[in-house]
Formats: sequence, structure tokens, C-alpha cells
Amino acid sequence: MGVRVFLAKESPPPRVGSRLILDSEESHYLLKVRRRRPGDAVELLDGHGGVWSARYTQTLAPKQAELEILAVIKRKQAPTELVLMLGLIESNALATALSHASELGVDEIVFIQCERSQGKHQVPSAARLERLFRATMRQCGRVCAPRTQGPISLPQALALHPQHSTYIASLSDLPAQALPPANAQRRILIGPEGGFTPEETQFAHASGCVPLSLGPWVLRSETAVPAGLALVRSFAQET
Amino acid sequence: MGVRVFLAKESPPPRVGSRLILDSEESHYLLKVRRRRPGDAVELLDGHGGVWSARYTQTLAPKQAELEILAVIKRKQAPTELVLMLGLIESNALATALSHASELGVDEIVFIQCERSQGKHQVPSAARLERLFRATMRQCGRVCAPRTQGPISLPQALALHPQHSTYIASLSDLPAQALPPANAQRRILIGPEGGFTPEETQFAHASGCVPLSLGPWVLRSETAVPAGLALVRSFAQET
Repeated sequence: MGVRVFLAKESPPPRVGSRLILDSEESHYLLKVRRRRPGDAVELLDGHGGVWSARYTQTLAPKQAELEILAVIKRKQAPTELVLMLGLIESNALATALSHASELGVDEIVFIQCERSQGKHQVPSAARLERLFRATMRQCGRVCAPRTQGPISLPQALALHPQHSTYIASLSDLPAQALPPANAQRRILIGPEGGFTPEETQFAHASGCVPLSLGPWVLRSETAVPAGLALVRSFAQET
Repeated sequence: MGVRVFLAKESPPPRVGSRLILDSEESHYLLKVRRRRPGDAVELLDGHGGVWSARYTQTLAPKQAELEILAVIKRKQAPTELVLMLGLIESNALATALSHASELGVDEIVFIQCERSQGKHQVPSAARLERLFRATMRQCGRVCAPRTQGPISLPQALALHPQHSTYIASLSDLPAQALPPANAQRRILIGPEGGFTPEETQFAHASGCVPLSLGPWVLRSETAVPAGLALVRSFAQET
């Protein structure tokens, strides 16, 4: 698997043919974690969609890796836009859910303060979100971190993307059914531990959310996230 | 949410109207973790499909909970059989994958010793599997732990259930497509960290495995498991 490193945050886009120095965290990752040698190929990401092929040239004191920029890499746009609206949950479960969501290509994550989200459950800090999304970008190859917003209320969240095909994860022991077609823009609503309250569920249905069965069992939120996103992503496009 | 406790392993099926004593682990769970009081309703599981409604009656020294059995609960059979064939991976990732798989209703898990499964990666002990599956059964409501077998080789695994509709998780940046119909028996093959080798992939295709796109990104195994199972479960039944 190729090695992916990140451009320092304030850097301008690098020019092809130029050289640049990675920051200490990225140098450590390249040299110590992935043990690369001068001459090895590297992919450089800015985390916002910019990707360059590069070569690791040399190490400058103290332990800083220099890259030579070889070319701009063009990546195709995903054919659909995918938004996850997630009730706030406990921080380890949330980290698992966010990693799954990022790998599955979610474009935006909206954190919702649900009735059953406990007060101590918070949106991770910007630094923690960045670390988490960088790890998934290194791993899975996506070149742009998901956007995040919130915490906001359920009505505020549902008002955000009114043109999206919207699904709400739900329980059902119905046999498998044909999956619905959807817009190019899709979003899925997944509740916190303990689920949505009956009032929240009713509000979501009244706002046009379509129930999406994830099977007969009560899933933890961090299981419902990858299961729900995989299904919503797979829906055929409306014609 | 109801409280679910397990019958001691050697116990015969309890008769309605009788009383029984939970073992110390289950008594601890009922009294200390879930803090139930005499008179509270409980679901009693044997882990192999047997379920009884019961009432917690009293605590006998030392810290043992007594239940009164009220009725047998009949559960419907799932309409499809779902088998996960999983390359061996690192133990924490494996625990996450197995929890997701159990919640999503997988009936059997076959562990595969793949080319890229590292030698130190092993099938969890029977005791660890039991703890893990009990936790998901308490949480999600399924009444029967998944069966497990392996580690075996990929050819051995593929020879196990020749009548099943078989899918292999794969990368694709194709737009979403109509999902195929399938047998009532389905299985999905998911590789270890680093994926299947080209030879393994070729062997799987030659053995009739149908590629199932989980999107354009390289998923970790513990993300591919819930994404793949959710999709395979959702396929309409062949008519």
C-alpha cells in the first residue's frame, strides 16, 4: 500500500518540481512508522482534495523529511453525496462510528443533540477529529476529510439539506425488500444509545424521513453507522 | 430496554412455573450492573435459541439471584441464513468485526487463514467468543450465538456451503447499481488486513464468488464486515 502524508496546514499548494519539508509529525510517520528510504514514492494530501505524487528525497536535521513534488493527481468526484446525521454517543463508540463513516466515503457528518444523548457526550475537539480523519485518509485513500457540524437539534439538522433523500435507521423483521432509488444527495439519520424517542421518530417521519430497515436486532450506533451508510450508498439513482 | 441473562451452561431447559438460581456472573450482571429489584422482569436465554420470560424473585446468600420462570418465548426464524467468511486479523479489530457481525444477525462465522493473515493472528478462545457473543445478545436481542469454525484455508471454506449465494467484498468506483437477488442462504468473503492476494481473489472468482462493491475506498476489515453484511442481508430473494 502507498504511503500518504499531509501537507502542513498553512502551506500554499506545492508546485510540481519544487521541494518541501514535512512537519515533524508527518516526518515521524514517514520515517519511523512506515520506515521509508530516500527515493521511495509518497502521496501528499492537503486534506481538502488536493493530491500530489512525490518522492522522499532526503532527511534534513532534525529528523525532517524532504519531498520532491512530481505531479498533481486528479481524483474523480464520487457520484453521490452522502450525509450522516448522528445522535451524540459515548466517545469511544463515536470514534469507531466516525472511522467507519469516513472510510465509507461520507461527505458530511452532522452531530445531533438527541433527547437520549447524555449531557457528557460531546463533539470531539477539532484536533481529535483531524487525527481521526487523517488516519482514515491514510488508510482508505480518500483525499478529503468529511465536513462536520453541530451539535444541533434534530429539527435544525433536518432543515439543513431539504433536497436530500432522507432515511432513518429502523428496526424491522420484514424479509429483505427491494431498495428504493434515491437522489444523488442522500442522508441517513442514526440515533444515540437507547435510540430516538417516539416523539423524535414521529418528527422525523413527519419531516419526510423514510424508514430503512437494518434488520430485526437492536444495533449499537457504531454498527448502525456502517450498515446504514453501505445501504444508502448502494441505492440506485432516480431516473 | 429489557434485561437479558443466561442460563448456566449445564442446566436442562427450565420448566414454566419452576425457580432457578443464576450463576455468580449472571447474578452480578443482574444485581450490580443492571441494578434490578425483586419483582423485575427478566429475559432468560440459553444462548442456543431458547428464551423464557422470568421474574427476579429474591437474592439468596451469597449474592445469587433467583428467577421464577413465567413462560416460553417463541421467536421467529430469520428468513435468510447469513454466513461470514473472514480472513484472520488482529485481535482488537477482530473483536469489533465479530460484535458488528453478531448484531447484524450472522448465523455462522468461518475464520480463514489467508496468505496475508499474520501467523500471530488467531481465532479467539471459546471463552472469549462466548463473552463477546453474550454481550451482543444482551444488547441486540438475538437469542442464538453465531456458530464458528476454523481457521481453515480459503479452498476449504469455499467448499463448505456450495449451495449459498456467495459474494466477495471488493473495491469499485462504479456508480451505485441495482443489487442482485440471492438464495435464502448467503455468504460473504472478507479479506484480512492488506486484502486477498491476486491468486486468492482469482480462486474466489473461479469458485463462483460474485464481486460486491463496498465503494471506492480501501476499507479496514472491521468496516467491511458490517457494510458487507448489511448489503448481503438486504438482497431480495430469488423467485
